[in-house]
Amino acid sequence: MDNFTFYAPTYFAFGKGEESKAGSLVKKFGGTKVLIHYGGGSVVKSGLLDRVKASLTESGIEFIELGGVKPNPRSGLVYEGIELCRREKVDFILAVGGGSTIDSSKAIAAGVVYDGDFWDYYEGKRIEEALPVGTVLTIAAAGSEGSPDSVITKEDGMLKRGASGDAIRPKFSILNPELTETLPPYQTAAGATDIIAHLYERYLTNTPNVQTTDRMIEGLILAMVEETPKVIKNPHDYDARANIMWAGMMAHNNSCGVGRSQDWTSHGIEHELSATYDCAHGAGLAVTMPAVFEYTMHHDVARFAQIANRVWGIPMNESNLEETALAGIKALKDFVKSIGMPVNFAELGAKEEDIPQMAHTCCYGDGSGSGKRYGFTVLDENDVIAIYKKML
Amino acid sequence: MDNFTFYAPTYFAFGKGEESKAGSLVKKFGGTKVLIHYGGGSVVKSGLLDRVKASLTESGIEFIELGGVKPNPRSGLVYEGIELCRREKVDFILAVGGGSTIDSSKAIAAGVVYDGDFWDYYEGKRIEEALPVGTVLTIAAAGSEGSPDSVITKEDGMLKRGASGDAIRPKFSILNPELTETLPPYQTAAGATDIIAHLYERYLTNTPNVQTTDRMIEGLILAMVEETPKVIKNPHDYDARANIMWAGMMAHNNSCGVGRSQDWTSHGIEHELSATYDCAHGAGLAVTMPAVFEYTMHHDVARFAQIANRVWGIPMNESNLEETALAGIKALKDFVKSIGMPVNFAELGAKEEDIPQMAHTCCYGDGSGSGKRYGFTVLDENDVIAIYKKML
Repeated sequence: MDNFTFYAPTYFAFGKGEESKAGSLVKKFGGTKVLIHYGGGSVVKSGLLDRVKASLTESGIEFIELGGVKPNPRSGLVYEGIELCRREKVDFILAVGGGSTIDSSKAIAAGVVYDGDFWDYYEGKRIEEALPVGTVLTIAAAGSEGSPDSVITKEDGMLKRGASGDAIRPKFSILNPELTETLPPYQTAAGATDIIAHLYERYLTNTPNVQTTDRMIEGLILAMVEETPKVIKNPHDYDARANIMWAGMMAHNNSCGVGRSQDWTSHGIEHELSATYDCAHGAGLAVTMPAVFEYTMHHDVARFAQIANRVWGIPMNESNLEETALAGIKALKDFVKSIGMPVNFAELGAKEEDIPQMAHTCCYGDGSGSGKRYGFTVLDENDVIAIYKKML
Repeated sequence: MDNFTFYAPTYFAFGKGEESKAGSLVKKFGGTKVLIHYGGGSVVKSGLLDRVKASLTESGIEFIELGGVKPNPRSGLVYEGIELCRREKVDFILAVGGGSTIDSSKAIAAGVVYDGDFWDYYEGKRIEEALPVGTVLTIAAAGSEGSPDSVITKEDGMLKRGASGDAIRPKFSILNPELTETLPPYQTAAGATDIIAHLYERYLTNTPNVQTTDRMIEGLILAMVEETPKVIKNPHDYDARANIMWAGMMAHNNSCGVGRSQDWTSHGIEHELSATYDCAHGAGLAVTMPAVFEYTMHHDVARFAQIANRVWGIPMNESNLEETALAGIKALKDFVKSIGMPVNFAELGAKEEDIPQMAHTCCYGDGSGSGKRYGFTVLDENDVIAIYKKML
């Protein structure tokens, strides 16, 4: 196992009605004037925004608002949020929404206290300082509620890039599974697929002998496979929503990814799909993962056979591990299909003719110029083209 | 799932040589004058104490020392530590050792800033304030390195009791698996058994539909069952030590125990054994767990059958769940025996004639006077006597 540090100091308030604690939690973590950041109309229509405002008012916390976050959140709104916070002397950002809203909030929080262009952080600069961020989560998916990460899309070139730093790990996150009960099945399934991807991509390691985190990851995927169909069938299954919500946080706060190399190939290749077609990130992952896994599995077929056996219940064929591994990848593909996710380019609305451009941006878009993607395996532009073609 | 809060803000530095960060970590968390608290000679003989001191000196941190912590740490040394810290104006406690040393350090940390008798906390008062505590862990077992808990034995009456509070959760913990390689097999196995007990006792819940935490617990037990025999065979298997060390932390920081009722019956019944005979806590648990589980399994035989199937690989006999459940308990018993743990009173050095007194203290020793123990099931003094008798 590799040396590591792990620090996850987010305070979680989990369960029914916990959004009423928003005001007292902002206060606990030192906020006096808040930017409430959110997306479209659902948090308004559902009354959630009003409940959060009432809680802030009750705790004597001032606030202003900035709505309009879109899925695959854009840099334009981040710049607007930064200006607004500076002008209004905001000292705390409260995200009310899903991963996109939280990521946009994190970007604003880092940008407000930074002299330069916030995009510097999304080109590789580590975030060392930021306003405190809190979240009221409305979809189990991105894991941003417990992570030090943020992904933003820059309109100029539609570059979708990530930034990281303990400074943007939320001070608190309110996780009320009831708030996810109104999500349409497609979004619910896309969120679940994102969670499963966070687990798979931690599982695909080149570090030997990491059984504890292997077993944790397998356990969390098993729970996702068990619980997700329940909420697709009955959106009001509170306990299943709750299990998924906690699994989503655990999948991405990195307690099951410490001390091991990880593989963010599927996320990287998917990012070009959601940046190009503005599709749901989880839907893109449903199409991407099986293609990436089939393409890279020979790098360590035993690892794919192990997860096939332990998670998908495929009998281990010791004399033909490839068969076991492939059956596991097929089981994953069948599973995401069964919960309503697309499994090919056509179903996603993606086009073959865009492949060369996407593969190029995927390999060269980080500005490093190496043209290589490092993860479970090392891939170049031709490999990425081949992977996209497998999705046709 | 029940509502819950979860807050685990300990900074972990994990891996080879990480103890060299002790000084910089004390500084990071605001310490200027440290009490180094430790147990017997092993941390001295191994040179660990000197390395920690060198690290503190390098960071310009002053320190004093208090050794002499015993397994099942006593209140006498806690009082001594409190006086010493007040006299020397210590502002940070650094535990160098295992669970006993960490628990003693937490008690001192709470006591120093409290006007009353620190034992109040061990009679039910919540710890709201304490000096900051850091740890350099030398045995994977108690999970105290990531928990808000402390267990101390009061010499007067040999009462072994626990206290809790976020204030005593360590600010940082240094986990270097190399430091555990010199542990004798018996202590290694006792530590592993303690970890397994922390997982089982979270598993035994009356909360329905908690699949995510169920699966996490099962995964962590599977890892323990896989890794422990490796270190019994080869104490220098670094990766196996590392897997056990992280599993030990995850088992008890409560991320796999949130939102569900838990069962601390085995710990409660064992505490009388280690308080009476000063045996290793984990050895006591090896004897206690199978007896408690056989006695209480009919309360929810399906739960015992589930863990028997998923962890111990016992085929699920749907028409006779009891058979499956019992086979799982036997598998646990066989496992702890296989790693060198005692499985009955005689092997532990316990005596039948002490049963009435231990059962009485177990049921009435908390001063509440109810005589009942609440957990997975409700037990009275006669039940506890019957459980001790099963251990003969």
